[in-house]
Amino acid sequence: MTTSTRHLILILLRVQPMTGYELAQNTKISVDPLWSATHSQIYTALQKLEEEGLVARETAKRGERMEKYVYSLTPAGRDAFRVWLREPIKPLPNRDPFRLWAAHIDECPPEVVFRNIDEYIQRHVELAERLDRAALTFIRGEHPLIQARMGRMSDEALERLKRTRAMIYREAAAKARFEAESGRRIRAFAQELYPDYEPNEYDD
Amino acid sequence: MTTSTRHLILILLRVQPMTGYELAQNTKISVDPLWSATHSQIYTALQKLEEEGLVARETAKRGERMEKYVYSLTPAGRDAFRVWLREPIKPLPNRDPFRLWAAHIDECPPEVVFRNIDEYIQRHVELAERLDRAALTFIRGEHPLIQARMGRMSDEALERLKRTRAMIYREAAAKARFEAESGRRIRAFAQELYPDYEPNEYDD
Repeated sequence: MTTSTRHLILILLRVQPMTGYELAQNTKISVDPLWSATHSQIYTALQKLEEEGLVARETAKRGERMEKYVYSLTPAGRDAFRVWLREPIKPLPNRDPFRLWAAHIDECPPEVVFRNIDEYIQRHVELAERLDRAALTFIRGEHPLIQARMGRMSDEALERLKRTRAMIYREAAAKARFEAESGRRIRAFAQELYPDYEPNEYDD
Repeated sequence: MTTSTRHLILILLRVQPMTGYELAQNTKISVDPLWSATHSQIYTALQKLEEEGLVARETAKRGERMEKYVYSLTPAGRDAFRVWLREPIKPLPNRDPFRLWAAHIDECPPEVVFRNIDEYIQRHVELAERLDRAALTFIRGEHPLIQARMGRMSDEALERLKRTRAMIYREAAAKARFEAESGRRIRAFAQELYPDYEPNEYDD
């Protein structure tokens, strides 16, 4: 099956019941570098999962005044996670907007060439740092999705979970660093293509 | 603007007018590792581009019996390519089905763990080889999209184009090799998680 925002929700609700807002927050602070989803994608997927009986909705008090919908996995939802985990992984279609663009830098004004490449490098340097920090919070047990599980799993199972998550976030960081390095090689090539261009000529 | 199959079509029709079938074939043999698109995605995008006046359709004889639609860029289509080339690149949402899955291998039966990881490694080893071969056909001028342009560009411009395309395909190959190496590291970690599992126990 194609992995989708549905699976993101199954993954998060396995940890504990959450409101739609908490699902979106946990996606943003935690899973986003592996699978980003907008609020609207999360709400649409939640509604479908509820219709299919994989997710149950309850009204609960949160805070003083507010009543909110809290979502939890049904037994069918837990099964759906187990099925997904055991399936072959269907790859996404190849989509590389940066390299599709960069294949044409021989025809592109150099100020655009260096602006786009530098933005790409910078974005991936920042992403790598963010992923390395996330890996640390997993291994140290400081991550909220780890803390929510403390006392509900054996120490050994929790230790395996921490090590596995940290390893994957480090690999995702390595991927972001690869992208930054690839961007730097493409930049060096662009300097050969446009030897007379001086990116900082208007900077002083 | 978000890069889409529309831009793939603008890129290909800049080389020469093509039928829908030729667009799909050229995507498959050439651009696919950077931007894959199904026949139906290509036809849907072609229709929209025609409605917007970026692409013109002509009926032309191809072969003995067949009349076919041949698509070409209008001046507005050439402008749209130029605009796309000069824009900032909008990144795709982060979507990494392999690592989202692999973040849970501590709970996955080991036969599934090793099957999925090995498939991932193998797929990226093959992709890297395919991209290295494509880079060679660009640099040697053997690529059909290079040959279609011979005599229609200055030698110098054609040389820059060949070098740029080859460089990008080599970078895409490096990315595929990174993915294979990352898969091998994840596999080594999985062997620590499941030290007693013998993947080949039923193979002899």
